[in-house]
Amino acid sequence: MKAHVYVTLKRTVLDAQGKTVADALQRMNYKGVTDVRQGKYFCIELEDNKDVAAIRCEVERIASEVLVNPVIEEYTFRLES
Amino acid sequence: MKAHVYVTLKRTVLDAQGKTVADALQRMNYKGVTDVRQGKYFCIELEDNKDVAAIRCEVERIASEVLVNPVIEEYTFRLES
Repeated sequence: MKAHVYVTLKRTVLDAQGKTVADALQRMNYKGVTDVRQGKYFCIELEDNKDVAAIRCEVERIASEVLVNPVIEEYTFRLES
Repeated sequence: MKAHVYVTLKRTVLDAQGKTVADALQRMNYKGVTDVRQGKYFCIELEDNKDVAAIRCEVERIASEVLVNPVIEEYTFRLES
């Protein structure tokens, strides 16, 4: 089973990398682009386990303890079997 | 409309960051974790456009011209209206 975890800066935190990408795209004439936010992506492979609730719980612990700085970042994840 | 772009190293390229995270999780007793791959995530906000095919085409051009190094990286994306 795979867990896909997406970590982004909170909306209230300035995302300088994303802003730089957005400005570059504007200069390159991609006029449809209004904003870019950049973040991190983790694909975690987990041993198969029938108990999806336990897996969700473990992924949440991994994200909040290791992958995310809760002061400035937030995360979402989805499971893929 | 939003485009979510996920950029990862190709399977054949060593992902040192992902390996480090996986090793750290093993040491922290997350025994269920067998592998971790790390990548980049971009959330691109686009002006609304009825023509989804044109948007897909633009996102593919943005990804391949700006966001991705095609020698070592690959990408997937999804649109959210």
